[in-house]
Amino acid sequence: MKIGGIHYRTIWRDEGGPAVCIIDQTRLPHEFETVWLETLADAAVAIQTMQVRGAPLIGVTAAYGVCLALRADASDSGLERACTTLAATRPTAVNLNWALHEMRKALQLLPASERVAASYAKAGRLADEDVETCRLIGHHGQKVIAEIAARKKGPVNILTHCNAGWLACVDWGTALSPIYHAHNAGVPVHVWVDETRPRNQGAALTAFELGAHGVPHTVIADNAGGHLMQHGQVDLCIVGCDRLTAIGDAANKIGTYLKALAAKDNGVPFYVALPASTVDWTIADGVRDIPIEERSAREVTHMTGLAESGEIVTVQVTAPGSHAANPAFDVTPARLITGLMTERGIAPSSREGLCALYPEMAGNAAAA
Amino acid sequence: MKIGGIHYRTIWRDEGGPAVCIIDQTRLPHEFETVWLETLADAAVAIQTMQVRGAPLIGVTAAYGVCLALRADASDSGLERACTTLAATRPTAVNLNWALHEMRKALQLLPASERVAASYAKAGRLADEDVETCRLIGHHGQKVIAEIAARKKGPVNILTHCNAGWLACVDWGTALSPIYHAHNAGVPVHVWVDETRPRNQGAALTAFELGAHGVPHTVIADNAGGHLMQHGQVDLCIVGCDRLTAIGDAANKIGTYLKALAAKDNGVPFYVALPASTVDWTIADGVRDIPIEERSAREVTHMTGLAESGEIVTVQVTAPGSHAANPAFDVTPARLITGLMTERGIAPSSREGLCALYPEMAGNAAAA
Repeated sequence: MKIGGIHYRTIWRDEGGPAVCIIDQTRLPHEFETVWLETLADAAVAIQTMQVRGAPLIGVTAAYGVCLALRADASDSGLERACTTLAATRPTAVNLNWALHEMRKALQLLPASERVAASYAKAGRLADEDVETCRLIGHHGQKVIAEIAARKKGPVNILTHCNAGWLACVDWGTALSPIYHAHNAGVPVHVWVDETRPRNQGAALTAFELGAHGVPHTVIADNAGGHLMQHGQVDLCIVGCDRLTAIGDAANKIGTYLKALAAKDNGVPFYVALPASTVDWTIADGVRDIPIEERSAREVTHMTGLAESGEIVTVQVTAPGSHAANPAFDVTPARLITGLMTERGIAPSSREGLCALYPEMAGNAAAA
Repeated sequence: MKIGGIHYRTIWRDEGGPAVCIIDQTRLPHEFETVWLETLADAAVAIQTMQVRGAPLIGVTAAYGVCLALRADASDSGLERACTTLAATRPTAVNLNWALHEMRKALQLLPASERVAASYAKAGRLADEDVETCRLIGHHGQKVIAEIAARKKGPVNILTHCNAGWLACVDWGTALSPIYHAHNAGVPVHVWVDETRPRNQGAALTAFELGAHGVPHTVIADNAGGHLMQHGQVDLCIVGCDRLTAIGDAANKIGTYLKALAAKDNGVPFYVALPASTVDWTIADGVRDIPIEERSAREVTHMTGLAESGEIVTVQVTAPGSHAANPAFDVTPARLITGLMTERGIAPSSREGLCALYPEMAGNAAAA
């Protein structure tokens, strides 16, 4: 999508060189800065410190991280070390392991001398495939928005949580792709953007990218969605997903579960948008079996923003001496999800729904 | 309760003088500053800018605001102007109107020359009554905590939202009074403190006052409570209330409804602590009939805290140009509330429960 009239992806190669460029998303929305990744360590740090974030973008960045690692050591042990290092950066995101698995599969049988070139080719294909996947999620998902628009006057009010936009992917996004498609097709939409504490990816990133594309939106505290739903001000929720189990339980940014409960209580459709790579076919019960990353308490106790002086300043917002806890994700049980928006179409969030979309996986899908 | 070993109330009179002193709660937790109120305008500004906040404290501050107004104009029109001005400062808080009604009732039949002295006497009684009411809420409510403590090992984990502690009242608090009572009685408790965006009253005030009193607590993002409940880490929720309808629907800080939904979904008891003055006997359906105050968007787009320089700095946390909405309260339907903790004991949150506690009001209680 575009920033200041220039089309960007979230990750791209230096033309001719080995390095990979990313947008430093920890500086958004106040500063637009790009960062060159030149080593395995650069890629691991970019994922760990959330310069790149969002399940699909993490996957593609990890793939390029393998490329950068192989430049230094293309042996079997070098490949393994790269995958182990990158897999440890974010324990909840299943796309990370999926992308590393794809890279290992493409590279491990090749002689070391061919691995570097092959790795860049493979990582490039993963990036291009992600763009096409996200485009298809939007193509299918926009129909849900159009159906609501046909039944009501005024814009379709869509609530989203965290950032599952093009900044979380390579382009288009997952949860925001249907919104961009509807907006581009002239369907009137308005987005309620959960600020998404503690890291504020909604207020900082979703609001930034929707604004840059011209999509009407309003930032709200994470606490506000239930009230808006009680008063008929939300027509539809669309969120992204970090890991979906084989029976349709969805791990996503902490607080998603609360919004799904409110949607259920108020009869508001609640959709999860995701590509096939986000499905973890090996587990069923998400609350029981998805490990939830505990991140630094400082993300809760401190907040960064733009001071009147024009500087980016970090301030402590909690009482001195108070401890904080920071679970980064929660699990929304399938029973609260109206449907999935995927690159192959819309389906119920259930084992049956998933197996109908991905029949080739039916033999491997865990059951409740 | 105590700060730095010194016992404070949240509002007190100058000994011998007409002025009233408050703690400026907008400076907490980083700075402890007191402010003298000398005029009606001072009192109105203190309520409107939330230097004082919390339903009971707003009521007592408004009562003293009447005293300060009458010093300048003790006529019938002066009394009316004071009540009208103060009633307009916070439209959702029912205690405000209740306190003004009590003041008007005590003063309107007196000659103007007697009104100033009578107003201070009445406001002082309202303050003392609030302390006793809060003490009784804690006395009754602690039994719920003690029962849970008797059934489990380790501390009772209690989640609370916003600040309904002694800082919201004159002393003790409503939702925190049972916790202080249990803690003082040696029952092990640990409090999950919702930070409570957008104004952070949890992170700033609840954490501050629990810390000052020595109660173990952990600050969490508002998004985290559902996840903690899914994993058995919350034994009990206790929240305050800004207005309770005659059938038990509770208006409280925005986001309370989301926590009540999660508590219901996970079988966690959810209690609302409040004094009789918070009940609005004239309405039944809270979602339909309680007006919800829309506060400044700046509370969402900006955040204030302590910078490393030691200065209190306000930073913008949203993308430049993004709008924000800021509904300040939501309504938790009675069906999600396990019980009420009041100065007269524990009861179901229903018309029957309320009328059993307050039989003298049964004739006036609105029905669904």
